[in-house]
Amino acid sequence: MSEKTPTQQVSEWLAALGRALERGDAAGAAALFVDDSYWRDLVSFTWNITTAEGNAKLRQMIEYAVLPSKSSAWRLDGKASEAGGVTEGWIRFETGVARGYGHLRLIGGKAWTLLTTMTELRGYEEHTGPTRDKGVEHGVHPGRKTWLEQRRQEEAELGVTTQPYVVIVGGGQGGIALGARLRRLNVPAIIVEKNERPGDSWRKRYKSLCLHDPVWYDHLPYLQFPEHWPVFSPKDKIADWLEMYVKVMELNYWGSTECKTASFDEVKKEWTVEVVRNGQPMTLRPRHLVLATGMSGVPNLPSVPGMETFKGDLHHSSKHPGPDGYKGKKAVVIGSGNSGHDICAALWEEGADVTMVQRSSTLVARSDTLMDLVLAGMYSEAALTAGVTTDKADLIFASLPYKVLPSLQVPVYEEMKKRDAEFYARLAKAGFKLDFGDDRSGLFLKYLRRGSGYYIDVGASDLVADGKIKLKSGVGVERIKEHSVVFADGSELPADLIVFATGYRSMNGWVARLISKEVADKVGKCWGLGSDTGNDPGPWEGELRNMWKPTHQEALWFHGGNLHQSRHYSQFLSLQLKARMEGISTPVYGMGPVHHLA
Amino acid sequence: MSEKTPTQQVSEWLAALGRALERGDAAGAAALFVDDSYWRDLVSFTWNITTAEGNAKLRQMIEYAVLPSKSSAWRLDGKASEAGGVTEGWIRFETGVARGYGHLRLIGGKAWTLLTTMTELRGYEEHTGPTRDKGVEHGVHPGRKTWLEQRRQEEAELGVTTQPYVVIVGGGQGGIALGARLRRLNVPAIIVEKNERPGDSWRKRYKSLCLHDPVWYDHLPYLQFPEHWPVFSPKDKIADWLEMYVKVMELNYWGSTECKTASFDEVKKEWTVEVVRNGQPMTLRPRHLVLATGMSGVPNLPSVPGMETFKGDLHHSSKHPGPDGYKGKKAVVIGSGNSGHDICAALWEEGADVTMVQRSSTLVARSDTLMDLVLAGMYSEAALTAGVTTDKADLIFASLPYKVLPSLQVPVYEEMKKRDAEFYARLAKAGFKLDFGDDRSGLFLKYLRRGSGYYIDVGASDLVADGKIKLKSGVGVERIKEHSVVFADGSELPADLIVFATGYRSMNGWVARLISKEVADKVGKCWGLGSDTGNDPGPWEGELRNMWKPTHQEALWFHGGNLHQSRHYSQFLSLQLKARMEGISTPVYGMGPVHHLA
Repeated sequence: MSEKTPTQQVSEWLAALGRALERGDAAGAAALFVDDSYWRDLVSFTWNITTAEGNAKLRQMIEYAVLPSKSSAWRLDGKASEAGGVTEGWIRFETGVARGYGHLRLIGGKAWTLLTTMTELRGYEEHTGPTRDKGVEHGVHPGRKTWLEQRRQEEAELGVTTQPYVVIVGGGQGGIALGARLRRLNVPAIIVEKNERPGDSWRKRYKSLCLHDPVWYDHLPYLQFPEHWPVFSPKDKIADWLEMYVKVMELNYWGSTECKTASFDEVKKEWTVEVVRNGQPMTLRPRHLVLATGMSGVPNLPSVPGMETFKGDLHHSSKHPGPDGYKGKKAVVIGSGNSGHDICAALWEEGADVTMVQRSSTLVARSDTLMDLVLAGMYSEAALTAGVTTDKADLIFASLPYKVLPSLQVPVYEEMKKRDAEFYARLAKAGFKLDFGDDRSGLFLKYLRRGSGYYIDVGASDLVADGKIKLKSGVGVERIKEHSVVFADGSELPADLIVFATGYRSMNGWVARLISKEVADKVGKCWGLGSDTGNDPGPWEGELRNMWKPTHQEALWFHGGNLHQSRHYSQFLSLQLKARMEGISTPVYGMGPVHHLA
Repeated sequence: MSEKTPTQQVSEWLAALGRALERGDAAGAAALFVDDSYWRDLVSFTWNITTAEGNAKLRQMIEYAVLPSKSSAWRLDGKASEAGGVTEGWIRFETGVARGYGHLRLIGGKAWTLLTTMTELRGYEEHTGPTRDKGVEHGVHPGRKTWLEQRRQEEAELGVTTQPYVVIVGGGQGGIALGARLRRLNVPAIIVEKNERPGDSWRKRYKSLCLHDPVWYDHLPYLQFPEHWPVFSPKDKIADWLEMYVKVMELNYWGSTECKTASFDEVKKEWTVEVVRNGQPMTLRPRHLVLATGMSGVPNLPSVPGMETFKGDLHHSSKHPGPDGYKGKKAVVIGSGNSGHDICAALWEEGADVTMVQRSSTLVARSDTLMDLVLAGMYSEAALTAGVTTDKADLIFASLPYKVLPSLQVPVYEEMKKRDAEFYARLAKAGFKLDFGDDRSGLFLKYLRRGSGYYIDVGASDLVADGKIKLKSGVGVERIKEHSVVFADGSELPADLIVFATGYRSMNGWVARLISKEVADKVGKCWGLGSDTGNDPGPWEGELRNMWKPTHQEALWFHGGNLHQSRHYSQFLSLQLKARMEGISTPVYGMGPVHHLA
């Protein structure tokens, strides 16, 4: 047994890695890792988001990405710790052009997981804290412009007489978080959003909607929610926050602007983006185009025979206004995910007669249990008290390779099943078809793999279990008639309202719509890990396809996800864009082939 | 010499104080203080803002305020420290109704200064961090209202069908900070502001205005500026922040609303406040009225013979739009404080011919030197790094008795004079009359005593020293003619523009205007310490007159000051109002007689 402290172990390991890399010894560096090891790199060496899995792949990455990056100054940040045979610590390092931060886990003196992330480009650091701007230029400056005059000039000129370096299509939390990062890095950007005001994409959802993720998970970059912010933000409150954030972060946000088409000139290396702003056609010519149109960009409204003959209200959940006016009416809600449950519960509370149609099995996790078992260690008041800030939590989360994640999650959901056994028994007895994911790995992996198929229970499940929300499970909708829904088993339900809570299509549907079918197919599927489970075909990718990293279409990027992902990955996308703007060499390592058409 | 550690000394002293108070022994408690000692209490025992100076007064305060408050649990917070013969530490304590925090300095084992402040009323704690609201009510609640529905209902009803407990007149940073505190304490309040939007009182100032205080000094409660916020906020940027703050803090802010009159019904214990909201007269009936009309509420525009005959532009600095359009024009700016200097410099930069009229000697402090010598230890990036947060700095500042402050400030300004000797020599040579306060105690004491008479130099002084801004010093304006200003010495200056940068009248001018001359005189002068120096007549008060504490008019309060004061003292005013709303006994100790008519 080693007599060394965890801090000594990590420090010595880092020194050894540094020496091996310095002498250009990929084999020697790789030999510092266990066979079944993982090096996840967020942009710092690979200019990509990629995980090298296993010693052979890792050696390859070292040889072709890490060595050329001229890393140095590998060192421990703070103290290392040890638990259950795993020694871990936070680390710092530098490359030829950037500074980095990361996390290391050692088992038996060798590395099991290594996370490396780029934090800033040397010479292009954000001005913050001690280096913040002064705000007023002291001294005498004839012809000086005030902050307001400069801001108004920028608003008047950008996109009109000068061109932004980046256009972001979509002004939800994803586009806004990325816009803020780019602003801080002095990358001229315009956010194009079809709704009038920032936050409108939340405002326009069904009225009972609250975030299902807790506040510690939801912070935007740079400006945290105050400490009294509610745990689960009501949708209109988060909308106000986004609107305020856009203002105080000084983003160039074009509301009431629809993006019509975009095409890339391979010679000029420039996009032509046609938009209609307040009804007026305009052309933008950025160097880079980011689609931040959201996981929930294109509603998935199935085509059901007879839909057009329905005499009541029929709409997709994204258009559902809420329960007002449906008291005493018969409602059929098709879908059993978050939206389906929320909408059913609100309709029932209003006094409607509600039936939920469950098309396939669903993962249900009680909110309190989920917070306690899954998030409490990282995103909670208790975690904060233990020193795990949201930024730290993001990095811990990022340090767990996607390959390993299911094995870590399965026991958590085993515990959940036990703890809420009575709850699940009641749901099952009511006919509700439950699952915990194809490999029982739970909610977050379902989210990463397919972005659907779950409900975080805040009350609706009791209504289902009690039969107050009626359930129609395991049978498809065959036809819609003037006043009813007809099912595959021949049964028929009268209906005044039909809501399709049937989710959204993959966000690369937008590529075909805005750019072309060719580019969409060249880029391929977005999202998903290649887990070869439902809705996430293999082969294994190890990272989310096309998200926040280079795609097979030059200068086209995808940004989005939940608030956590929008916050954390906007850091890496903004640094990739900044590096390109400044002409820093950005050789991309680890671009895999595209396996699936869009 | 004592062998005890500072922590032991403070702990033992607190234990001794606790024992003396517990046995009702005012003499014994007072004996723990040196003769020349100070106990400053912010609301916790006295329901007042008051400093007992000297052992006799202190014993009185203990007997009549501290003993009846049933204090307990006096204890050290963290570790005490010792420097230069003074041992100091942060302390906690409780009273019969509240929790408190404070600061103690011991010399030779006895107390020299003690600060006690109320932090929260027991049973009425703000919900924050671990006790924050959930945001969504889990479970099933027929008839539930969403956050937005509740907010809209409140906005529709408050002041119309239901009455606020408090009306705050004035929606600048003072009214806003207090409004936020009251909101968090669930005290229904309406802020009444004549401008349309929050922040307009900044937006409408001359365009070059930036805050003269640095960002660490300027935070609002609950929501700090982000770390990249500029050191000196441009006026329009701070205005946007205030507007956003009002929105996300959910304040009931009535813009475009002018307060016309207010009167107090001594029997019903209720105010009748007549306002005109968006042109429509309305009556509000709150229990308490807070005037937060600002130090800079009523412009002081001197009456000069011939003013009305002037053919050019003539206005008070509060109406000065900035330099645009004055290129090549002759400008005379009367006044040599912050506004006078800023306006002169901006006009000069625009290419105007500018003369500054200095009526009396002025304190000039170079911004960099002031930050370095006066604020760096408390409000700066370095202070933050050393653990002195803005909240801590507020308390350190509050812990220094006003009586002692001048003796601490004189050496600082001696150092400033030395460091910037060349700068001051150049200014003097140009004929600029300099001072450092009647007793050379510097800028902040001038601010506390009279709120005027200083300039924080960000560049204009060089223009004065170089003769680029011409100077007319020590001679009054006698008359204004159609195209010129005539001085007492018979000299005459041609003018196209005259700006009166002549400051503002005391904020209790508002009492006479809104309520009555009788009430104004009953309440007396606002602001000032009674230092018996220029514009601050004695006798000594030891605290700012009438600010943030009970006045001689029941249910009438004054709130305001700079951003630091608005932030810190809003805590104590909000707790006083909350206690009254909840029917908690609030016996006020130490109300002195009124010595000066309004």
